[in-house]
Amino acid sequence: MDWAGKDFLLNNDFARELFHDHAAGLPIIDYHNHLDPVAIAEDRRYADLGELWVRTDPYKHRAMRINGVPEHIVSGNASDREKFDAWAATCPMTLGNPLYHWSAMELRKVFGIDECLTPSSAGMIWDRSAALLKEKDFSTVGILDKWNIETLCTSDDLLDSLEPHVAATQGAGSFKVLPSLRADSVLAFGTPAHQAWTGRLGEVSGLDDYLALVNERLDVFSASGCRVADHALDNGFRFSIPSKDEAQGIFRKCLSGDHVPSDDIVCLKSYVLAFLAGEYSRRGWRMLLHVGAQRFTSSRLRALAGPAGGYATIGSPCDMESLCSFLDHTEKVHGLPKTVIFTLNPADNAAFAVTTGSYSEDGVWGKVQFGPAWWYNDHKEGIESHLRAVSSYGLLGRFVGMTTDSRSILSFSRHEYFRRLVCNYLGEMVEKGEAPADMEYIAGIASAIAYGNSKEWFNL
Amino acid sequence: MDWAGKDFLLNNDFARELFHDHAAGLPIIDYHNHLDPVAIAEDRRYADLGELWVRTDPYKHRAMRINGVPEHIVSGNASDREKFDAWAATCPMTLGNPLYHWSAMELRKVFGIDECLTPSSAGMIWDRSAALLKEKDFSTVGILDKWNIETLCTSDDLLDSLEPHVAATQGAGSFKVLPSLRADSVLAFGTPAHQAWTGRLGEVSGLDDYLALVNERLDVFSASGCRVADHALDNGFRFSIPSKDEAQGIFRKCLSGDHVPSDDIVCLKSYVLAFLAGEYSRRGWRMLLHVGAQRFTSSRLRALAGPAGGYATIGSPCDMESLCSFLDHTEKVHGLPKTVIFTLNPADNAAFAVTTGSYSEDGVWGKVQFGPAWWYNDHKEGIESHLRAVSSYGLLGRFVGMTTDSRSILSFSRHEYFRRLVCNYLGEMVEKGEAPADMEYIAGIASAIAYGNSKEWFNL
Amino acid sequence: MDWAGKDFLLNNDFARELFHDHAAGLPIIDYHNHLDPVAIAEDRRYADLGELWVRTDPYKHRAMRINGVPEHIVSGNASDREKFDAWAATCPMTLGNPLYHWSAMELRKVFGIDECLTPSSAGMIWDRSAALLKEKDFSTVGILDKWNIETLCTSDDLLDSLEPHVAATQGAGSFKVLPSLRADSVLAFGTPAHQAWTGRLGEVSGLDDYLALVNERLDVFSASGCRVADHALDNGFRFSIPSKDEAQGIFRKCLSGDHVPSDDIVCLKSYVLAFLAGEYSRRGWRMLLHVGAQRFTSSRLRALAGPAGGYATIGSPCDMESLCSFLDHTEKVHGLPKTVIFTLNPADNAAFAVTTGSYSEDGVWGKVQFGPAWWYNDHKEGIESHLRAVSSYGLLGRFVGMTTDSRSILSFSRHEYFRRLVCNYLGEMVEKGEAPADMEYIAGIASAIAYGNSKEWFNL
Repeated sequence: MDWAGKDFLLNNDFARELFHDHAAGLPIIDYHNHLDPVAIAEDRRYADLGELWVRTDPYKHRAMRINGVPEHIVSGNASDREKFDAWAATCPMTLGNPLYHWSAMELRKVFGIDECLTPSSAGMIWDRSAALLKEKDFSTVGILDKWNIETLCTSDDLLDSLEPHVAATQGAGSFKVLPSLRADSVLAFGTPAHQAWTGRLGEVSGLDDYLALVNERLDVFSASGCRVADHALDNGFRFSIPSKDEAQGIFRKCLSGDHVPSDDIVCLKSYVLAFLAGEYSRRGWRMLLHVGAQRFTSSRLRALAGPAGGYATIGSPCDMESLCSFLDHTEKVHGLPKTVIFTLNPADNAAFAVTTGSYSEDGVWGKVQFGPAWWYNDHKEGIESHLRAVSSYGLLGRFVGMTTDSRSILSFSRHEYFRRLVCNYLGEMVEKGEAPADMEYIAGIASAIAYGNSKEWFNL
Repeated sequence: MDWAGKDFLLNNDFARELFHDHAAGLPIIDYHNHLDPVAIAEDRRYADLGELWVRTDPYKHRAMRINGVPEHIVSGNASDREKFDAWAATCPMTLGNPLYHWSAMELRKVFGIDECLTPSSAGMIWDRSAALLKEKDFSTVGILDKWNIETLCTSDDLLDSLEPHVAATQGAGSFKVLPSLRADSVLAFGTPAHQAWTGRLGEVSGLDDYLALVNERLDVFSASGCRVADHALDNGFRFSIPSKDEAQGIFRKCLSGDHVPSDDIVCLKSYVLAFLAGEYSRRGWRMLLHVGAQRFTSSRLRALAGPAGGYATIGSPCDMESLCSFLDHTEKVHGLPKTVIFTLNPADNAAFAVTTGSYSEDGVWGKVQFGPAWWYNDHKEGIESHLRAVSSYGLLGRFVGMTTDSRSILSFSRHEYFRRLVCNYLGEMVEKGEAPADMEYIAGIASAIAYGNSKEWFNL
Repeated sequence: MDWAGKDFLLNNDFARELFHDHAAGLPIIDYHNHLDPVAIAEDRRYADLGELWVRTDPYKHRAMRINGVPEHIVSGNASDREKFDAWAATCPMTLGNPLYHWSAMELRKVFGIDECLTPSSAGMIWDRSAALLKEKDFSTVGILDKWNIETLCTSDDLLDSLEPHVAATQGAGSFKVLPSLRADSVLAFGTPAHQAWTGRLGEVSGLDDYLALVNERLDVFSASGCRVADHALDNGFRFSIPSKDEAQGIFRKCLSGDHVPSDDIVCLKSYVLAFLAGEYSRRGWRMLLHVGAQRFTSSRLRALAGPAGGYATIGSPCDMESLCSFLDHTEKVHGLPKTVIFTLNPADNAAFAVTTGSYSEDGVWGKVQFGPAWWYNDHKEGIESHLRAVSSYGLLGRFVGMTTDSRSILSFSRHEYFRRLVCNYLGEMVEKGEAPADMEYIAGIASAIAYGNSKEWFNL
């Protein structure tokens, strides 16, 4: 079959028809990403692929570092052309990596370039893309409009301005840009950064003040169309609920800058996390839980390259008792919002997929979702494993589907990548006699996963 | 290929011949299930598919709950027709789930219905099956006799009456019904339920009394043909052996109803579990260990729907040091019976498969078995992963094969499902040149896994 | 396809050309094994397959034990013919196990025997191989020379003589034999064996002495061509760095033979492990970390058959925080050598593969490697899973490839096994359109993985 061609990842006739006639043309709902709303509002332009494609993409940075590219070229002051050339030299080594697939898809789809990126094709690709980037429809909005996007949800700190989202939505693009809450700052207790953040939040003398001020900002987010909040449950998530008095005591200690034992931090975080979940529920928001990253790796590279230095890795499997305990407590005490649980460790796939069956609500389909293959798992094997887990342990027909979690406007190729894999997965079932060859039925499932379910579930 | 047709799951010629000519016709030994021996003894009849197929099946209940069906329809007072219709609306969403496959197989095999269950076929399927259920050979025994069952082992509490098993075996069916011990009540220390249970066991003033009374009941089970005991090692199994004095002290505390710290409960459970394992060994029983369920999920749904409310999920990977320590201690101190280790977390598959090599006994093949893909893992991918683990890390030819672990008399379709997957697995090896195309040899392996090994290993 | 024939494991045309024309003929670099350098230096001869193939192979022993073969036949005084016959009876049960594949490949490649080993072919195979073993080129060196080996790195204790390696390299064979350090004795604190070992090391009154003497031996290893050191991080690896004073105090306690709490042992091991890693770095060595074995299983079988009795199993998933903390601390304080991380638990695959991106060094490609599928995972599924992990989460083109980790001179078949699977993996990508059908490019990747990368990365 042609490499990365029209039928890329579609290994049988049913899958090909399913994708081309039913899934490919659907709009995109991207319910969690890290796009910059200001860049969209301003309709920023890019001089070249170094600036657009390499400079800000940590996936490529990490691959280049593994390939031995020095840090100053990757994240430092090297020119965009140097960065691009370093990526061109690394790309052939990524065979089988999603970067290899995405790169081909993005060059082809956006720039009409069929050649693989290698050191020898780099100059031609640089020049052709630079010429195109001068054209009118290759601005930020122009590129975004190539993907048939309906709604984007960016990730915003509770204290961020939400005005850019309004401007971005009212701009030239044919898509909506909504804020979503990245709530990690709220829970970063016991760090100097959190003290500073609390100062910006307002005057806080205790936990009640704190939560009241947080709640006010949640209302602002609600008013701006936010319907999603997101938490990173990193570095070995544990859940342990203290009494209200204990929580208040620990909070005061954090506020005063005293050292707080890590077990106490766990308790305070648990308390506030459950509170927030309840507030999301009360407002009809959805909650995303990103579990399992091991954020701290190399101190040496952090010192050299900032907080992304060394990159996160995958942590040990999730403590399922803590996860269940958090969902249980929240459901019982505060009300559980519709929730998506993501794991960075694919060893958790079965456990996460099964957990979607345990916190159901009358009249709500798919109340707890197993989020799509996330971050490092967003590749062919990862997506297929995830689909197998969802269908084997849960209800495939109720899966809310893909989001990019990306900071790049070229990353919407990942929706196409995902849809091809979904169609291939379904097509193989049919071809093997594991599902009826009923195109209407199967296309209904595929469309729901590609678009309809997220539209309805997120109420977007 | 035809959906769920004659060659369902059989993707090559060798596999098809292997299944149809060698595996399909073998009798079934189901060494662990939750059938009701009273229903078999009484040869109970069913009015419709709601009663027979939906009302008591927690797999379908869970799928319906994920689909948003209200609890009162799933487990409450709704009519059997309402329950059936809710299941008919859910079934199409389960594409790729074993429920989708099993449903098609069961409707086809038992009722001769080829149509998929959907809201639009529901009425026809309800009527046709209801008519059949009036016929003589659609009683409990009649349906069981359709599966070519040789021996069934039900799961019975130590205090249960074993008379129904005698009646069931002597009934009209062509199969034997044996009790097997579900021993969890014996170890439920520190709960009010355990105090009540101990009261029913007899007069107990200390651990010695307790174990003596338990032992008497083990003799009753032995005399009734029981050869299998089963333990659920849930919620993060840990093993820690106390001294005899310590165990006795903890037991007295439990008996008195005092609060007992959870570490002490772990010690007491470890002590009695090892003791029981020794008693099984002395009697020539087999021990089944079901590891890895996280039983407690939603308190809210438990309060609403009873102990199954919210359903169990999959717990964190097994603490392999505890598992090895339990097997080691038992082997050294009490004698280790033939043992099957099951895990609910497929992330444990490799570790469990390898552990079968560590507690061997002269002259006993396959003394420790890695139990077949269990509960939530009893699906195509789960069974294939398990077979890969057994063959890659152990001895496929010595695997004791499938058991349903089910409470439904229609679930024997799962043996056919399993056998098709085993034959396909072996057939693919042959087709790819990874095994010789020697039908006699390969059929010997397939038959052993489908029937012969369990007959010999369990001595049934 | 022919069973274990010319195109064994090569399922498409591209893969077949790739293997036969590009990968098959490359030399072998085996950077970690347990061959006996004395046997090579002396060019030892073998009377029969019992002696050569069965007597010392723990993989076969374990399979035989699972099959019920008594310990005295497996590891005791039974004759080599008895051992061989027991293996012949077990072999057919290992269908799908790498032993089944390796056995066919080794009989075919070394002895020209195409028949499967079964009880009925055993006599013929015994006789034909025994006749060949009398021939000149079936000595240790003769057999090794059949594999096109370039360099072998054996595993040697810090106190072992390194003279045999010189003799082995200067012998008749066309390969180099280098020592590599198996450093576990250095860290076996708190055991009588370690006290004895320390006595052999020299006069030690404290940790400084100890490390100085260890350092002297490292220099001897360096001078003998050693470039690799290896650590087994078993039984639940944890990392916790004490102060220098604490480390010295714990060491003195160990030296005195007092009981030392296990947490203190963890601290002391962590301290010395990080120190050693720094010393490797300083000398330009590579460090291999073998993580995840659960060494202790059956005390009964240890008592019967020695330290291998009961065999190790796979431990729980790695504590990723400890692994990252070890790499981080070492990198920061001592300098991190090029490192290969192996895991015995395939549930760790994704986490290990991702961790290779976190400790990069300017100008060094693939500084941290995810080691090839190790020990129990060295089978078709394990190798394929590993390749998928490396390519999906890292840089396939920078993978250093296979090593046998074996004690058998017949085990070099595993390199062929690995290369076939690599070529098939790449060929399937091409056939499915997931990679360009560019033989020069793909063959470059395959050759690098099969040979070139290890040669360059290990500087051999």
